[in-house]
Amino acid sequence: MSVFKFDDIPVWKKLKEHAEFMKKPENCLASLLEDKNRFNDFSIKGGGLFFDYSRQRVDKKTMELLYELAQDRNVAKTFQDMVKGEVVNVTEKRAALHTATRSFADDRIDAGGVDVMKEVNRVRDEIKVFVEKIFSGEIKGSTGKAFKHAVVIGIGGSYLGPEFVSSALAAFGNTGIALHYLANVDIQDFGRVAAEIDPETTIWVVISKSYTTPETTSNTVQAYDFMKSKGLDPAKHVVTVTSQGSPGDDPANPVIATFHMFDFIGGRYSVTSAVGGVPLSLYIGYDRFESFLKGAETMDIHANEAAPEKNAPLTAALLGIWNNNFLGYNCQGIIPYASPLSKLAPHVQQLYMESNGKYVTTKGQFLDEETGMIMFGEPGTNAQHSFFQLAHQGQPFPIDFIGVINPQYTQYNSKSKGVTNFQELWANLISQPAALAAGMDNEDKARFFPGNRPSTTIILNDLEPASVGTILAFYEARTVMEAFVWDINPFDQFGVQLGKTMAADVRVRMEAKNENPDTTFDDADPIVKAYLEMLFNGSID
Amino acid sequence: MSVFKFDDIPVWKKLKEHAEFMKKPENCLASLLEDKNRFNDFSIKGGGLFFDYSRQRVDKKTMELLYELAQDRNVAKTFQDMVKGEVVNVTEKRAALHTATRSFADDRIDAGGVDVMKEVNRVRDEIKVFVEKIFSGEIKGSTGKAFKHAVVIGIGGSYLGPEFVSSALAAFGNTGIALHYLANVDIQDFGRVAAEIDPETTIWVVISKSYTTPETTSNTVQAYDFMKSKGLDPAKHVVTVTSQGSPGDDPANPVIATFHMFDFIGGRYSVTSAVGGVPLSLYIGYDRFESFLKGAETMDIHANEAAPEKNAPLTAALLGIWNNNFLGYNCQGIIPYASPLSKLAPHVQQLYMESNGKYVTTKGQFLDEETGMIMFGEPGTNAQHSFFQLAHQGQPFPIDFIGVINPQYTQYNSKSKGVTNFQELWANLISQPAALAAGMDNEDKARFFPGNRPSTTIILNDLEPASVGTILAFYEARTVMEAFVWDINPFDQFGVQLGKTMAADVRVRMEAKNENPDTTFDDADPIVKAYLEMLFNGSID
Repeated sequence: MSVFKFDDIPVWKKLKEHAEFMKKPENCLASLLEDKNRFNDFSIKGGGLFFDYSRQRVDKKTMELLYELAQDRNVAKTFQDMVKGEVVNVTEKRAALHTATRSFADDRIDAGGVDVMKEVNRVRDEIKVFVEKIFSGEIKGSTGKAFKHAVVIGIGGSYLGPEFVSSALAAFGNTGIALHYLANVDIQDFGRVAAEIDPETTIWVVISKSYTTPETTSNTVQAYDFMKSKGLDPAKHVVTVTSQGSPGDDPANPVIATFHMFDFIGGRYSVTSAVGGVPLSLYIGYDRFESFLKGAETMDIHANEAAPEKNAPLTAALLGIWNNNFLGYNCQGIIPYASPLSKLAPHVQQLYMESNGKYVTTKGQFLDEETGMIMFGEPGTNAQHSFFQLAHQGQPFPIDFIGVINPQYTQYNSKSKGVTNFQELWANLISQPAALAAGMDNEDKARFFPGNRPSTTIILNDLEPASVGTILAFYEARTVMEAFVWDINPFDQFGVQLGKTMAADVRVRMEAKNENPDTTFDDADPIVKAYLEMLFNGSID
Repeated sequence: MSVFKFDDIPVWKKLKEHAEFMKKPENCLASLLEDKNRFNDFSIKGGGLFFDYSRQRVDKKTMELLYELAQDRNVAKTFQDMVKGEVVNVTEKRAALHTATRSFADDRIDAGGVDVMKEVNRVRDEIKVFVEKIFSGEIKGSTGKAFKHAVVIGIGGSYLGPEFVSSALAAFGNTGIALHYLANVDIQDFGRVAAEIDPETTIWVVISKSYTTPETTSNTVQAYDFMKSKGLDPAKHVVTVTSQGSPGDDPANPVIATFHMFDFIGGRYSVTSAVGGVPLSLYIGYDRFESFLKGAETMDIHANEAAPEKNAPLTAALLGIWNNNFLGYNCQGIIPYASPLSKLAPHVQQLYMESNGKYVTTKGQFLDEETGMIMFGEPGTNAQHSFFQLAHQGQPFPIDFIGVINPQYTQYNSKSKGVTNFQELWANLISQPAALAAGMDNEDKARFFPGNRPSTTIILNDLEPASVGTILAFYEARTVMEAFVWDINPFDQFGVQLGKTMAADVRVRMEAKNENPDTTFDDADPIVKAYLEMLFNGSID
């Protein structure tokens, strides 16, 4: 069994030694922060955001070594290869070209001998024309009514990305179409959505690359039966976003329109493709969707071109590696001080943990270091009143604080204690990273703060569509750059296969029981049997 | 500096030795699960739920030692003391009587010489009468219209508990009143809520024990100005839930009604008090709120009275300690296969991490072991399409899987691949814990599953109000029982003070700048100064 040993990388070994130095009490954050130039020396402005890592447990030597590691591991080169359409998804033998979906350059991008930009531009144009026809009422439901609701049926990457962006931009949702998500196969999700919509004015957007995802198929079947039960013609209420030639792109199953997604874009990187394009354009209009793409493009160009020490996502990736592999943190918090970004953490949770929760290199060797961290988070200040007790006095974990200078709503400016609500929010955003870093002694040990808890602060000018694109592309770039340091493949997800296979076996047993109530489960694993009996008996008793 | 050494507890040391034995490859879960009696031997039915820990990395000896630890650490006795009203919150010198808020026994419960049940029953009766008057239209807004919206202003425990329960029971929200939450001081939250409601038919429920929480005060000031700007009289649109004698209980600030909360109930344990009682009764009616309380009471009685090896929350608490302190896991996932429980994880995240993210004993000694784990989660199957790649092939973490046998919606039964949506959900619920535990070998190492990943499965009969009370009380009991093992105080939260103090300093600077634009921040910490300038300049540039 071949194992990749990170200590064989000379700079990795140097970083390990240096980490011991940085762990010494005299190099705690409170000491490091005595340097009055620290904020200038350990912050980056670029790609549409401000990135401050002055409260990470690093000194100049740490950063020199980390940039050397990036150089040694070919991170910038691999990123450039990715953007150019090289086969960076080696296990699945294809390109990973999410960056192409927000490129507005005139250059060709070739993947497998095809100019993908031609396809990307075609789909963008189709979306633009389509949503105009929806808004103008040219396309109507089967009873002649204009659409007022859109239900997105999709799961994983077909759900979390669009949900993040649409919730971040809800303040711009003025097209007259309300957006709903039907992701889980839980019938309670379907029941909830069915209660929220008016079937006659509802358009269903079914998103699935293969069009065979069980959850999405089940929900689509349910939706078709629901429409028919209301006397509606599904062909006039459904659009699909799927691969060319999939069952969702079959003229035998007519729909209003089909928008293609490409095999060179993974689900968790797909919100800038038609996966996000169709629902978001229905919700906020195509022009705002395009602004969102352009914000992402700004960050892509920064990630691809900025020098390492001026490169925000690369620096973030290296700090992730530092915190995880050298300081031993295995979780990270993502705390936006902006409620519209409340779905950023669930999105990054998928993006990062599905990409980087791996244990083999691209060459199939086991790794002798941990890869991905667990990502979680809630908006601040809510998080302060939730789990920050543990953040301050329990096991430490690094945090990304995210702030926004200009809020989406500017008309409410009442003051309490001399400050507006938004200033109160910022007073907390400014103070929490400082408190976590500095700590505070106290004779009463229940009121003692150990400090030395690292964080990064990321600032956006606003929450216009472009800024949401910027922060999305920032986390995408950070994620793949970390993967490139470890030399893992951030684009596959074989780890979800075993559960799927086992679920298929259980499904067959359920189907048999549905067909013949006398079916028993005696030959099943005893635990599987027990649960199948509970379900069919309808009780734990 | 006094340190409490866990190894001084003889059974703790025995558990450490035994953990080394359990970590051996031959004691992995795949081996343990070969025992056909394992499901019967390692599961508990009681308190309203089924608790299966057959996929935890334990054997019979582990459990014997863990129950011995509970005995040694007086866990059952401390729980009983808590329920009786003893001063278990030692740092704040008071009782912790959340269990009293769902007691329907006739017994007195004395705290500080007062029969708290008298107060509890009075408040329950007041809520019942009050919501009837709202529903009947006897209490109307200042323009004579009946109420159709309720906005809950509150943060932390005044928000996450009610939000969890109201979202779990949304299927029962048929009182004609839509519920909205305004927690964060982010003005974008206020803007969102203001866009959702009709001010004339909106009742605002302000929840704050002290009535001085900055976020809640800021939002309340904003709400009052908003009402006045619409020509409405706040006195006829606001109710308060607060401590007797607080600024929210002052006749000089008239409101429709005030409901008292008590100092013996902490925020994160308060959803069964008036904190949940008022908003939930407005949303689902008082009778269903009472059913919810009775479900919690069922679990409380089980937690208090069941023998250790038949006690589900005690066993869960001991497994938490085992996983954290002996097997070295520091995170736990909470994955309900039930979308209505989507807010369970954020609620438990607060409940558990704020309670158990501590590092001193009740006697003020430092601990030489980690306490609380990081809790996070999303509903399954959504989570499978999000972070389960990492769960299967990245760093392992224990998971609570939660299933529900009878869904809230029963009218949608279309089948896909021979099974209903709800059966498809269960096929996954049954398979994921099995896949995580067993793993699977593969020559292609990218498709190899290491297995040995522990989980618990908890099953509820349904998602009626009582069952939601049961699962709530289960996690409350588990949380405090873990704390009792460590001898930490799960009822205080001094760890949030430092950030608050520092935010107050920043607020003073902002106030000065608001009053006099010539104010500079030159004497502030350089990082604080930089962010204040960004905010007041309106740009990162």
